[in-house]
Amino acid sequence: MERPPVWLMRQAGRILPQYRAIRSSLSGFKELLFTPSLAAEVTVQPVDELDVDAAIIFSDILVIPECMGLDYEMVEKKGPLFNQTIQSSKDVEQLISGQIAAEKLEYVFEAIRLTKDLLDNRVPLIGFSGAPWTLLAYMVEGSGSKTFSKAKRLLYKDPELAHKLLNAITDTIIAYLKLKIKNGVDTIQLFDSWAGILTPDLYNNFAAPYLAKICKAIDEVPVIVFAKGAWFSFDVLAEMECEALGVDWTIDPKFARKAAKDKILQGNLDPCQLYADEKQIESKTQAMLEQFGQGHIANLGHGVYPDTPLNGVKTYVNTVKNYKYSS
Amino acid sequence: MERPPVWLMRQAGRILPQYRAIRSSLSGFKELLFTPSLAAEVTVQPVDELDVDAAIIFSDILVIPECMGLDYEMVEKKGPLFNQTIQSSKDVEQLISGQIAAEKLEYVFEAIRLTKDLLDNRVPLIGFSGAPWTLLAYMVEGSGSKTFSKAKRLLYKDPELAHKLLNAITDTIIAYLKLKIKNGVDTIQLFDSWAGILTPDLYNNFAAPYLAKICKAIDEVPVIVFAKGAWFSFDVLAEMECEALGVDWTIDPKFARKAAKDKILQGNLDPCQLYADEKQIESKTQAMLEQFGQGHIANLGHGVYPDTPLNGVKTYVNTVKNYKYSS
Repeated sequence: MERPPVWLMRQAGRILPQYRAIRSSLSGFKELLFTPSLAAEVTVQPVDELDVDAAIIFSDILVIPECMGLDYEMVEKKGPLFNQTIQSSKDVEQLISGQIAAEKLEYVFEAIRLTKDLLDNRVPLIGFSGAPWTLLAYMVEGSGSKTFSKAKRLLYKDPELAHKLLNAITDTIIAYLKLKIKNGVDTIQLFDSWAGILTPDLYNNFAAPYLAKICKAIDEVPVIVFAKGAWFSFDVLAEMECEALGVDWTIDPKFARKAAKDKILQGNLDPCQLYADEKQIESKTQAMLEQFGQGHIANLGHGVYPDTPLNGVKTYVNTVKNYKYSS
Repeated sequence: MERPPVWLMRQAGRILPQYRAIRSSLSGFKELLFTPSLAAEVTVQPVDELDVDAAIIFSDILVIPECMGLDYEMVEKKGPLFNQTIQSSKDVEQLISGQIAAEKLEYVFEAIRLTKDLLDNRVPLIGFSGAPWTLLAYMVEGSGSKTFSKAKRLLYKDPELAHKLLNAITDTIIAYLKLKIKNGVDTIQLFDSWAGILTPDLYNNFAAPYLAKICKAIDEVPVIVFAKGAWFSFDVLAEMECEALGVDWTIDPKFARKAAKDKILQGNLDPCQLYADEKQIESKTQAMLEQFGQGHIANLGHGVYPDTPLNGVKTYVNTVKNYKYSS
């Protein structure tokens, strides 16, 4: 390969005027989520506009809690807010899980089929899920949080209940991902967005084993695991049966390469780097590509921020597309 | 030394009923901050109630921006909100800095003198400051933030302006800390609370050099540097002329010891660990003490959370006080 492939987390979103036009015509985020034709349309927009090498289905990690029985609202500028949370064993028992829960997400599968038609094999389609720990965090906390201290409290106070919930979430994720694959996605990415607030011990007990179980279960397509902030467990992640590991912007590519051995690495430009002028974006992107070397998928170290100038994004993508490995 | 000393970040705060009683009689956080007799009283409360080995003056890191000319409100449950922010070179030029700015903080110095009287040499008193990068982050962003993307944008878009502001902040911090020392504090802690959202490059360019400058300037008393989340620059921090480095809960003590060489290490129990039952707090605290070994100040890996049960805090402190190094 002469250059790495390139896409951006959150590329189907507010950075694109086409997305903002559709979004402003709707009642809210969830209307877009629940309307397969529109979800497919915004999924394909960055492929048309930015010429990225992959599409990622427009969706939300919280469709899993919702199909399990916990619905949420997406509050503008605040984030998700759940109407109920998980506090007891009884709460977990009342959840639906596994295949029956996953089958409720037909609107996602329809969006995938429509997207595949629109893409017409131009680029692969990535499907995704939140990781079990990150989903537990929302289901227990009930909203976003700086510390997720209620969710972490559960891990310390009632580890048995935490594992019970994590097992139910994991079963649902596996069923969901298998249905996503059946409906056409070519790759899976797992987002462990709140990995970085755990201790190494908690991560290796309550997060990593469930990610590993999912990786083992998904053998139909390549899997990318992105555990943001989990530098301390990078060697544990590297043991999983996945093809690639996401790298956030705090991790030096050399550190990642050493810990990840022969895994493909995905990342890791700081999203804020795209606020800079074109020349700086070019030179910093090139430096990143050189540091990672072969076995790399170019991406940011996190989702692109909604207020990123479109020109900055294009400069980034084009810099990767014009790059040639030196050896 | 038979056991390490122990104190907790944010020990003068909502975990204590005595603090909540004083706080509820006041109009808000800033009234407490601006009333030296009350600030002194809440500073001493954890020494009386918890029998910790150090007091830390009740104050706020944002007194520095305020004495430089940017005032802020502390909005209940939301955090700080600045009335103006720094956007241009002109904004920086309009700030006051250095000795003149620091001298405006007489209410802090009076609180220190009163605290020293109340403590009557029972335990040392720690004075503190926010680190330059963390203070810049608030001064540019204008409030707390998950990403501090406006502050980071400044580093990428106008590094010269960022350095100008960082220099003004650093000069003010040094003058402020020297006045704190003159008025009686026995140790200094620098809080770089938002270290972890920078890349290693940004940290080493925009944060570490200013911390190093402060460490070099403060030779009267020991200095503790706590750069939360900056695991990637721990070796850079270890080169500073400070006596101790704070360790957050994501960092394994072995990693910290290796990078920090002969520095004293301070930390690092997960604040959420104190939600657990007594037995678990005891065993996890003992395990932490063993992992750090000699050259350690027992603390949490971050400030204690306001809803932590007082019994959990006491169990933690007493476990350290009853500990004996095995060799």
